[in-house]
Amino acid sequence: MQSTMQDFPLTVGMIFRHGRTVHRDSEVVTFEGHKSRRATFAEVADRAQLLAAALRRLKVDVGDRVGTLAWNHQEHLEAYFAIPGIGAVLHTLNLRLFPDQLRYIINHAEDKAIIVDDSLIPLLAPMVAKLSTVEHYVVIGDGDISELTNAVADTSATVHRYGELLAAESPGYQWPEIDEYAAAAMCYTSGTTGNPKGVVYSHRSTVLHSMGVGLPAGTGFTDADRVLTIVPMFHANAWGFPYAAWFSGSDLLFPGPFLQCEPLARFIEDERPTRSAAVPTIWNDLLHHAESHHVDLSSLVQVTSGGAATPRSLIEAYQRKFGIKVVQGWGMTEISPLAAMSWAPKGTEPASDDDLDWRASSGRVLPGVELRIVDDDGTVMPWDGESVGEIQVRGPWVTGSYYRDPSPEKFSDGWLRTGDIASVTPNGFVRISDRAKDVIKSGGEWISSVELEGHLMAHDDVAEAAVIAVPDVRWSERPLACVVLKADATTSAPELRDFLRDRVPAWQLPERWTFIEAVPKTSVGKFDKKVLRAQHADELLIVEEIE
Amino acid sequence: MQSTMQDFPLTVGMIFRHGRTVHRDSEVVTFEGHKSRRATFAEVADRAQLLAAALRRLKVDVGDRVGTLAWNHQEHLEAYFAIPGIGAVLHTLNLRLFPDQLRYIINHAEDKAIIVDDSLIPLLAPMVAKLSTVEHYVVIGDGDISELTNAVADTSATVHRYGELLAAESPGYQWPEIDEYAAAAMCYTSGTTGNPKGVVYSHRSTVLHSMGVGLPAGTGFTDADRVLTIVPMFHANAWGFPYAAWFSGSDLLFPGPFLQCEPLARFIEDERPTRSAAVPTIWNDLLHHAESHHVDLSSLVQVTSGGAATPRSLIEAYQRKFGIKVVQGWGMTEISPLAAMSWAPKGTEPASDDDLDWRASSGRVLPGVELRIVDDDGTVMPWDGESVGEIQVRGPWVTGSYYRDPSPEKFSDGWLRTGDIASVTPNGFVRISDRAKDVIKSGGEWISSVELEGHLMAHDDVAEAAVIAVPDVRWSERPLACVVLKADATTSAPELRDFLRDRVPAWQLPERWTFIEAVPKTSVGKFDKKVLRAQHADELLIVEEIE
Repeated sequence: MQSTMQDFPLTVGMIFRHGRTVHRDSEVVTFEGHKSRRATFAEVADRAQLLAAALRRLKVDVGDRVGTLAWNHQEHLEAYFAIPGIGAVLHTLNLRLFPDQLRYIINHAEDKAIIVDDSLIPLLAPMVAKLSTVEHYVVIGDGDISELTNAVADTSATVHRYGELLAAESPGYQWPEIDEYAAAAMCYTSGTTGNPKGVVYSHRSTVLHSMGVGLPAGTGFTDADRVLTIVPMFHANAWGFPYAAWFSGSDLLFPGPFLQCEPLARFIEDERPTRSAAVPTIWNDLLHHAESHHVDLSSLVQVTSGGAATPRSLIEAYQRKFGIKVVQGWGMTEISPLAAMSWAPKGTEPASDDDLDWRASSGRVLPGVELRIVDDDGTVMPWDGESVGEIQVRGPWVTGSYYRDPSPEKFSDGWLRTGDIASVTPNGFVRISDRAKDVIKSGGEWISSVELEGHLMAHDDVAEAAVIAVPDVRWSERPLACVVLKADATTSAPELRDFLRDRVPAWQLPERWTFIEAVPKTSVGKFDKKVLRAQHADELLIVEEIE
Repeated sequence: MQSTMQDFPLTVGMIFRHGRTVHRDSEVVTFEGHKSRRATFAEVADRAQLLAAALRRLKVDVGDRVGTLAWNHQEHLEAYFAIPGIGAVLHTLNLRLFPDQLRYIINHAEDKAIIVDDSLIPLLAPMVAKLSTVEHYVVIGDGDISELTNAVADTSATVHRYGELLAAESPGYQWPEIDEYAAAAMCYTSGTTGNPKGVVYSHRSTVLHSMGVGLPAGTGFTDADRVLTIVPMFHANAWGFPYAAWFSGSDLLFPGPFLQCEPLARFIEDERPTRSAAVPTIWNDLLHHAESHHVDLSSLVQVTSGGAATPRSLIEAYQRKFGIKVVQGWGMTEISPLAAMSWAPKGTEPASDDDLDWRASSGRVLPGVELRIVDDDGTVMPWDGESVGEIQVRGPWVTGSYYRDPSPEKFSDGWLRTGDIASVTPNGFVRISDRAKDVIKSGGEWISSVELEGHLMAHDDVAEAAVIAVPDVRWSERPLACVVLKADATTSAPELRDFLRDRVPAWQLPERWTFIEAVPKTSVGKFDKKVLRAQHADELLIVEEIE
């Protein structure tokens, strides 16, 4: 029996229209270092509509991918609505990727156009010759574009100014009707072995995730909130917070490229956000800066910390010193990304030790996400706070494959295998005890240890190399390279570090090195990094630190 | 281009599983007049699973309708999950309907089974002979069932005890997979002319409505809340609050049949709800009772008032006397029902006059609902706070037709025509200036004036009759019968009232009567009730009050 309900599609346009009308006076503020630009939701919406018309004029069609290589700012938000709004696919490009990876994902996604900040042209221009599908580059900002124009000269692509494109359009663009299962946005994750894998969000998943984020179990944003999204808009759509905030009528505060403590603190004092979201590294830096510079953080009520485990001490420091509630979010690009938030359960005394303990967990499963833990034999383990297993999740905003890369080994019976090992308490709090074994999370960015190992083992003097994550106060984790040299080797740690310099981004270069006799192996001959981690924890490895 | 997201259906099962696991220790409390029964979400879920197995054993199949004629209590909640969970359709029966209407909707929906409170057997038993499709009656409670057994004796149906059915089942029933567009529940609305019309909710609409209700713009329920649902579970699924509360982990407090002030106040004092939902009549009664009896309402933080307009004076009294925030909800059975909530917008000083003014509006459009106002010519009017038009809504939890009764006149270009006339402020607050012209809302129940008129005009002495809504302190509105007698008529108001007594439920009988020379007409000859309302407001009608 069918219902009598309207067959009304869940689309990004639904989010867009709600904020545009019901919250037309909410504001979007973009920091420019010394002053801020501001616009109302109605104004941003009008500009998004002009951008949509401009993209259609450039022959961007339904299903075409449009890359964005940009910091967090108003124009990026306009692209968040305009690109899915015309039925195209918003492909956010992680500007921290190594150029080879960036080029790989642009070509793999077959981006037809790229919207790029003028300040990021130096990153993009050198690879333009190798971007085979890009027909249009749209530059945000008034900066010099000659480097890009020169690079494009040898191709059939064209370069445009964002502002000029919008100025050439008139209001009134008619948004098309869109199927809710159609692609709205995509994001590549480098958190796995091999090439980056693309996750493609649908309109439907974006709406549902926005509602999940908006629930009190997520963020509970209201129209009285001012949401400072420090987490980059190229990280799983800034954890979906811009869409959720727009849907809730919360003001949106964007820091642009000013992510260092000093300007960030100034932005916070000027614009008085009530909520924010960033990786623990940022919160750690801001804490120390605020302590030593008497920064006024009093507007902040609650901030979300995610992308890597947040130390309890950091959560406690914010609570005790500033009365700010740090709540951890857990998720991954494959989950849109939010799966859990560490709000304490009912009956917990606010700011008590219990409260801090709960908040130091990976979080409680959100409505809309289903989670189970499965042991090595495929047995579903109980939520008893002790049994451990790999976290597997399913739900309407969880990916079921990768873009042009089905990767069946990442899925099991309709569940996404996250690779994270955890226990779950009877009331649904996840405690991650071990991490996807090959990945290092540094300042919210993923470093593939397998990739580092591959490069190292390509060196003539290296017999074997295993890279493990080790705790780091500032970055949460950093790589430790464990190297087995060949018998007649003459190389050194600084030399190997230089060897890597041309192969991976600078921020991925290990500072910590140890030379060992052999990499421990499992029974089936695989590297057994658990042993290495235990040896490091027991201080059995002699670690050399270099910069 | 398709997304990579899982094709994960939005089902009532998704809500069920979340509450059952993540919030297994939240509790369901049912008031029994002098004491309360309580069960955890896990226990309720286990029982719902047993009920599901029992219904399958009774051969209730996918798509079959199962009626519930019951007050608000734990077993009704179990039915809320078990019936949709097996793919059948929860058909909540309004126990306040006139028996003829009740019989009509049971037969129209073709209910295969009815779950009934023992205390409601006297209402159901007399119509059993005329219920052509019902094969099973399941009685909740240990009361005498002989009246029902006797009535059923002449039919092929059978009578069961709810408790015995559950006791005969074992745990482990395997829930089927369900399409999200399948029917989950249905509810008949009598707010229109003619026979009641059925609205059929889908699994999808139920999940989305639950998320919309759960957002801070809706209720913002958290697991720390204790939600007292006074609004009946046969009124659009108690406004969807039981599902939303379960999804949020809020405790659920059910008053059973004890809706009078005195026991209700006792239940509130005993169980300390933080939130509640009821029609204004209940809030009005409770206010006066609490003032005169020193009732402790201090646990209540916010309550939702809906089903009829809530006077600003009532909102103010709760605010000033008890610090309780009364927020109005606006919607209708056709909208699942919630479309708007009257939380004040950002920048409003709590408890200020501004705050009360906003809260006295019909509310602000919720995320997920789209609303427009359209004038008589079909022109979409601006949201300027002044222009008025008929409210039309669309969205994933808005009906697109009626069950076996498409009623195209109720829809326009994909929008539901609500019949309510309103203006909308630029920030999305609805102010209903006029009501669907033929309907009277009395204590949250709809009275069709057209139906009363039809009966009156069937009287030999009556030439014409128009019934209009007039304000009433206790019931919000009551009918005023405006009667034109024939030249030689000898009848009186008390006699006409008696004449109606066999034709409509007692609570619909007008107390107020006026005899006029003619019913004012519009240019096309229709009754012009606006003129009558204006005459009444100007005290130009001589009104006779009788009981």
